[in-house]
Amino acid sequence: MDNLRSVTHMENIRLSQDRRSLIIADQTKLPNSHEYIELKTAQEFYDAIYLLKIRGAPAIGVFAGYAACILGAQGPMDSAHAFIAHLEKQCAYLNSSRPTAVNLSWATGRILSRAKELCGLAPEDILPRLFDEAAAIHDEDMDMCRRISEYGLSLLKDGDGVLTHCNAGPLATSRYGTGQGPLFLALEKGVKLHVFADETRPLLQGARLTAYELHKAGADVTLICDNMASIVMKNGWISACMVGCDRVAANGDVANKIGTSGVAILAKHYGIPFYVLGPTSTIDMSCPTGEDIKIELRPEGEIREKFYSQPMALPEVKCYNPAFDVTDNSLITAIITEKGICRPPYAESLKALFE
Amino acid sequence: MDNLRSVTHMENIRLSQDRRSLIIADQTKLPNSHEYIELKTAQEFYDAIYLLKIRGAPAIGVFAGYAACILGAQGPMDSAHAFIAHLEKQCAYLNSSRPTAVNLSWATGRILSRAKELCGLAPEDILPRLFDEAAAIHDEDMDMCRRISEYGLSLLKDGDGVLTHCNAGPLATSRYGTGQGPLFLALEKGVKLHVFADETRPLLQGARLTAYELHKAGADVTLICDNMASIVMKNGWISACMVGCDRVAANGDVANKIGTSGVAILAKHYGIPFYVLGPTSTIDMSCPTGEDIKIELRPEGEIREKFYSQPMALPEVKCYNPAFDVTDNSLITAIITEKGICRPPYAESLKALFE
Repeated sequence: MDNLRSVTHMENIRLSQDRRSLIIADQTKLPNSHEYIELKTAQEFYDAIYLLKIRGAPAIGVFAGYAACILGAQGPMDSAHAFIAHLEKQCAYLNSSRPTAVNLSWATGRILSRAKELCGLAPEDILPRLFDEAAAIHDEDMDMCRRISEYGLSLLKDGDGVLTHCNAGPLATSRYGTGQGPLFLALEKGVKLHVFADETRPLLQGARLTAYELHKAGADVTLICDNMASIVMKNGWISACMVGCDRVAANGDVANKIGTSGVAILAKHYGIPFYVLGPTSTIDMSCPTGEDIKIELRPEGEIREKFYSQPMALPEVKCYNPAFDVTDNSLITAIITEKGICRPPYAESLKALFE
Repeated sequence: MDNLRSVTHMENIRLSQDRRSLIIADQTKLPNSHEYIELKTAQEFYDAIYLLKIRGAPAIGVFAGYAACILGAQGPMDSAHAFIAHLEKQCAYLNSSRPTAVNLSWATGRILSRAKELCGLAPEDILPRLFDEAAAIHDEDMDMCRRISEYGLSLLKDGDGVLTHCNAGPLATSRYGTGQGPLFLALEKGVKLHVFADETRPLLQGARLTAYELHKAGADVTLICDNMASIVMKNGWISACMVGCDRVAANGDVANKIGTSGVAILAKHYGIPFYVLGPTSTIDMSCPTGEDIKIELRPEGEIREKFYSQPMALPEVKCYNPAFDVTDNSLITAIITEKGICRPPYAESLKALFE
């Protein structure tokens, strides 16, 4: 409980003082209550990711780094070999909670690699170094968000209208955010923007999270249903679309929240720039194209009944509920990373980021 | 009660045997219960329209025709003058229940005109002829839907996937429907289709009504969120989009449920035909283009909280909630009416319908 009280507003992930638990804002409770929960067990960490209490690629990475360390500390401390074997098993379990989230396995992989580098040490000496690594992931995330936000904001000007889809703001990261990072940085810098937030069915992250955190931060935000993106563009209210990304293929195809590809097609139709913002860690150079990205299918009940006071369709009615879609690189004006702004052809510009 | 039992499934509007009441399916209760209610009084008829227990332009017209006759029969029968004066008052009251519904005042106006034509007769001789007029409105609606459905189905083949938006099926008409009419006719004719129904936020007519009535009729229907239209098209599952229309301008621009224009843009991007289906009565040759169509704005609460067990956005968050959007004629493959299939250029093909 002391741990819970020590968390400040809009701080999403915090390691407890004793390093035995993680404290997060339970995002499934927003916008009606901003509650913090404390997690300690493998099952709790798994569920937090699977049930979307913690979500957003960067936030999941930060979360998973700390979670791996906490779970490592719960394993055998008599030999490095046994310690690392246990850690490896826990990381695999965490990874299985959301297989599409590349930051998840990236972060646990980084902790595990560090442990393996340190296999000559005793477990009690390995462990603090792993927590340092997890803290580094956290610090790097804040720095990364700030850089992405700076690059993104350089593409906007005072008075612009920006359309967002889903949530890639502070709640999805450590600070600022990626997809919505420039909008929060604009508030700091006094750049006035008009934000239109897609509600993002079926899980309504745009309504529950993006509109919530932008409004709380003082932004001018208007909530719309996903199917209203076309009319707000046609009305001339949108100067740019900015979204996050879950995974970027080597050719610039982008997997992101379901509906992203539709927004990109509308933007192209209306001649509006479509920007994808994310850290280089979401760029998977081993994945040649979007066709190689497996799309997670989620439960049908999320469409039929979740959030409603009574079901909105018969239980026998089939639903198709993909969590993501792939936006073709030809629809993307620029991909904005902490290392700079990539323009087409992405096969070259993305590759250059890693050289 | 005998009246209620005599209604067959999916018959939305039925005049009772004694011609003293109307029996309708209460659409506000769908999909969780399919309840029939019997209406007799002016207040009951008014409320049924105002509270959307009956909805869909054609269905409201059929309903209002019968309702006017039933209310006429409750008036003075001693003189044609008094009978018609009473009828006129009742029609004005019915019309006030939903002033934007053109079919409502069109149908009551038709009953009233017929009464005035017959003013030389005694009320007891006028009345059966008014019921004949109401039955004619009903028959004409069924005939219109059947013809639209035949034309529409001629554009589909066995195994096709069809994407729908909102509801323009039997529940919105007398039988078959307009936008979804071909899908119901296909069931009768043994043509196998795979239907994908957009849920259609914020009022969810696609989930509550379209998916419901298609499933009950035995169709293969899959419910999706509006923002999944892009991925189902990309998956290669959609051969055609079919939607209804609220108003068609002389140049072929179409006002229909919010989100229709987005579906049309996606269809164009993926090279999928986009068909609009509706009676010639929705074509407004006095309206030059879509720019001349005023878009109704509806309450913000429909986005933030309606249907949900708790609000999905803070009450202070602004919402933009247009009920309709306008689809540019350049995005429409064909407009299908009871008089035939119109192709571009619509300025010519629509005009030809009225010559």
